[in-house]
Amino acid sequence: MTDMLFKDSEKIKVKVGTVVFGEGAPVMIAGPCAVESIEQLRASIEPIKDKIDIIRGGAFKPRTSPYSFQGLKEEGLKILKKASEEFSLPFVTEVVTAEDVLLVAKYADMLQIGARNMQNFALLTAAGKSGKPVLLKRGISATLDEWFHAAEYVLKEGNQNVVLCERGIRSFDTTTRNVLDLAGAVFAKQNTCLPVITDPSHGTGVKSLIGPMIKASNACGLDGVIVEVHADPGNAVSDGAQSFTPEEFLKAIN
Amino acid sequence: MTDMLFKDSEKIKVKVGTVVFGEGAPVMIAGPCAVESIEQLRASIEPIKDKIDIIRGGAFKPRTSPYSFQGLKEEGLKILKKASEEFSLPFVTEVVTAEDVLLVAKYADMLQIGARNMQNFALLTAAGKSGKPVLLKRGISATLDEWFHAAEYVLKEGNQNVVLCERGIRSFDTTTRNVLDLAGAVFAKQNTCLPVITDPSHGTGVKSLIGPMIKASNACGLDGVIVEVHADPGNAVSDGAQSFTPEEFLKAIN
Amino acid sequence: MTDMLFKDSEKIKVKVGTVVFGEGAPVMIAGPCAVESIEQLRASIEPIKDKIDIIRGGAFKPRTSPYSFQGLKEEGLKILKKASEEFSLPFVTEVVTAEDVLLVAKYADMLQIGARNMQNFALLTAAGKSGKPVLLKRGISATLDEWFHAAEYVLKEGNQNVVLCERGIRSFDTTTRNVLDLAGAVFAKQNTCLPVITDPSHGTGVKSLIGPMIKASNACGLDGVIVEVHADPGNAVSDGAQSFTPEEFLKAIN
Amino acid sequence: MTDMLFKDSEKIKVKVGTVVFGEGAPVMIAGPCAVESIEQLRASIEPIKDKIDIIRGGAFKPRTSPYSFQGLKEEGLKILKKASEEFSLPFVTEVVTAEDVLLVAKYADMLQIGARNMQNFALLTAAGKSGKPVLLKRGISATLDEWFHAAEYVLKEGNQNVVLCERGIRSFDTTTRNVLDLAGAVFAKQNTCLPVITDPSHGTGVKSLIGPMIKASNACGLDGVIVEVHADPGNAVSDGAQSFTPEEFLKAIN
Repeated sequence: MTDMLFKDSEKIKVKVGTVVFGEGAPVMIAGPCAVESIEQLRASIEPIKDKIDIIRGGAFKPRTSPYSFQGLKEEGLKILKKASEEFSLPFVTEVVTAEDVLLVAKYADMLQIGARNMQNFALLTAAGKSGKPVLLKRGISATLDEWFHAAEYVLKEGNQNVVLCERGIRSFDTTTRNVLDLAGAVFAKQNTCLPVITDPSHGTGVKSLIGPMIKASNACGLDGVIVEVHADPGNAVSDGAQSFTPEEFLKAIN
Repeated sequence: MTDMLFKDSEKIKVKVGTVVFGEGAPVMIAGPCAVESIEQLRASIEPIKDKIDIIRGGAFKPRTSPYSFQGLKEEGLKILKKASEEFSLPFVTEVVTAEDVLLVAKYADMLQIGARNMQNFALLTAAGKSGKPVLLKRGISATLDEWFHAAEYVLKEGNQNVVLCERGIRSFDTTTRNVLDLAGAVFAKQNTCLPVITDPSHGTGVKSLIGPMIKASNACGLDGVIVEVHADPGNAVSDGAQSFTPEEFLKAIN
Repeated sequence: MTDMLFKDSEKIKVKVGTVVFGEGAPVMIAGPCAVESIEQLRASIEPIKDKIDIIRGGAFKPRTSPYSFQGLKEEGLKILKKASEEFSLPFVTEVVTAEDVLLVAKYADMLQIGARNMQNFALLTAAGKSGKPVLLKRGISATLDEWFHAAEYVLKEGNQNVVLCERGIRSFDTTTRNVLDLAGAVFAKQNTCLPVITDPSHGTGVKSLIGPMIKASNACGLDGVIVEVHADPGNAVSDGAQSFTPEEFLKAIN
Repeated sequence: MTDMLFKDSEKIKVKVGTVVFGEGAPVMIAGPCAVESIEQLRASIEPIKDKIDIIRGGAFKPRTSPYSFQGLKEEGLKILKKASEEFSLPFVTEVVTAEDVLLVAKYADMLQIGARNMQNFALLTAAGKSGKPVLLKRGISATLDEWFHAAEYVLKEGNQNVVLCERGIRSFDTTTRNVLDLAGAVFAKQNTCLPVITDPSHGTGVKSLIGPMIKASNACGLDGVIVEVHADPGNAVSDGAQSFTPEEFLKAIN
């Protein structure tokens, strides 16, 4: 293959503020699935702020049903920016359409492209043009090759700041929400020039499995994890069942 | 569920020109994967024009690699329009981003939303607002429920002209390109108010299986099929291996 | 490949009593999942006896849990034999271990090897040695190639009387119990010398889909279907939800 | 559920010679896929004997094709026994039919039941009756629940010495041979009373991924790994591509 993704023998390091992906130490990203208010975000981050490197939180939420909560949109971005400044931590947030890239890039330190949009080529191209660091999740049944080519759409625009994120693939067994393909993530690390992290929260969907998968992900040399933490999971607008409380998070990473 | 998709006891009939999906007789859609020139399109359609109801052809092509042919874009739409008028047959063509919906809708009789974009919610919403008939393909590993909710994004905008299209799901066996989930298509027909067709070309990816799957699809009461036909598959810019020649098509549907 | 399965250009016809698989007309096999009593079997078969060619019924039942009903064993075989004589119809029944092959072969006209045992090589070899016609179900996630090689274990013993049966593969969507891989069945028919049938009852697990799948299977030229019919599905010891009553069966095949 | 598997609050420890599964320290099992000769076995084990706890090696090989090498059978068991005595290490070996259980149990310290036989209920029952420790691999597309119930067949016979082994599940992506479901293995550990190990060799089928998966498996608290090591993988009769040389093994576990 002649793709840029594979061309470089040199591994790419991706900087997000002062945080660097690909330098050996795994990066810890945590926060709620969806941003609901500044109070919710503060309560979720304050207890864990010394243990994390980047805040996550969704302002634009792609949802299976059009009648589900779709996110606070620009209001959510402002809340994330405020929390980011208060805690002196950069933040990553999802962007779901090409048209929103400039708006989200105005606030966010890193753009997340979600599993459903992994082959939304207009969005990938726009994210590439923005020059912003991109966190590219693997599609729920994307082959490794399709994932790598999706990254290539960003790189092709001159933007090498791409971090790959394995977030679980769909299998025949619904005991766990998805199957975290840890070996696939290691394969991505070995066969591309990009940093690779995992998402044990979506990757398992079962709270008791998240801690062990964080440890496993770090043990096999990957570049970080992204974890859902919510001050009050029972009342979260989305993904409550797989969200840690801050206390559970601290216990899980010990 | 309170979705519009399931609310109506009355089945929806979708009109595309004088063609109607959902009236009992299966609709036949055929044509090349990608439009390459007016000559290629004429040569592909002329021999089969009496056996088909709608022309298919791609002007905007979503491709796994950014370096693959991405389609003739507006030039392709003009070629499709020309052929449509010459043969007095309406045409369906894929639209891949929300921004292109108005442009494509200016030419096309029916908008196709492809498998990769089944959860591109901005695109679904824009297609809904356009009022044009929509051919909504099932995602390659979408559950039936996710597919139905994707349709709901179109219906929610007041556009009931949606035809569902099963085009094969991803499995563990690569002998066939995908597994055509014919029973899933029948389930969709029984449990929603929308017409449902199948795509045996993508659904199998094996030429010798397309004819039997057309017969099977029609036998179980579905509303039509969409088939790839190319005058010269050996030189097609995409999907040549699974494309019928016009002669093979005529033989397969006999 | 040099396997016997593919060597012959001539298609094999498999005779079970006076019934022949592979002669063009699809063979209809029907009956209850498990044999419970002669009364239950009579009540299940009597109303449909003119519409079927072979009786099915399980005497040895492989079950996921050791605490589930495992079948009437030899007593079940005797009941099947009795019904077979009363209705002048041959019967097929499952054998689950190599040691039972001789016992089952003493009563049955055709031995069924189930999906769980598709790679039970001792059983395949014993069935081959018995010389009896074998109905070989595809494993729930067996590739087509693995299925063909399983058949080869029977043929290798000099027994060419093998009928392949596609019974649904495991997918990511649990709306239907399995996904009936109809195109895979046609591929088996085109690429081996053996007759191929389908099992729409297990292949879908949804009663309303069985009738359409029988029609689809017949329309694409396969050699028959096997269908669960039970006089009183609500009180069946297994698989009641996907079993037709005799009346539903008659309506479905009309 | 009332299964014995879940009844006990107390975790079971499984002893194989002086080795104990479930005491905290992960157990290391290694050796060739198939036993070919005493020389091959010695050359494979000698360089790694201080780093492993149990020898593995196949004497009865279940193979997809009837024409592939099926193992040395009793001769292979004798070779394993000899090596076991020379190195003072117990050994585990696969048994593929109920009839062979007594023969294999005469030599082996632990019986392996392979993925293809996970629902060979006669074999599970015979292994249960033997009283020998059993290494029960998960079927290639078995749900966790089906796996647990298969173990129950052994426990039901009064034999609690069962170790579960996750060995990769089948997915849509063939880049890796299988997908190692590490979170599924942790789920098994958390939700049953049995020790759980993983098989990174079959679980990935890619040599460069085996080392990272050993580390990951140990990091998340599982009870051991089973790894293929062959003195001369290039000339192995089976599974050469995923077999470590002894040197590669020593490097991978460092």
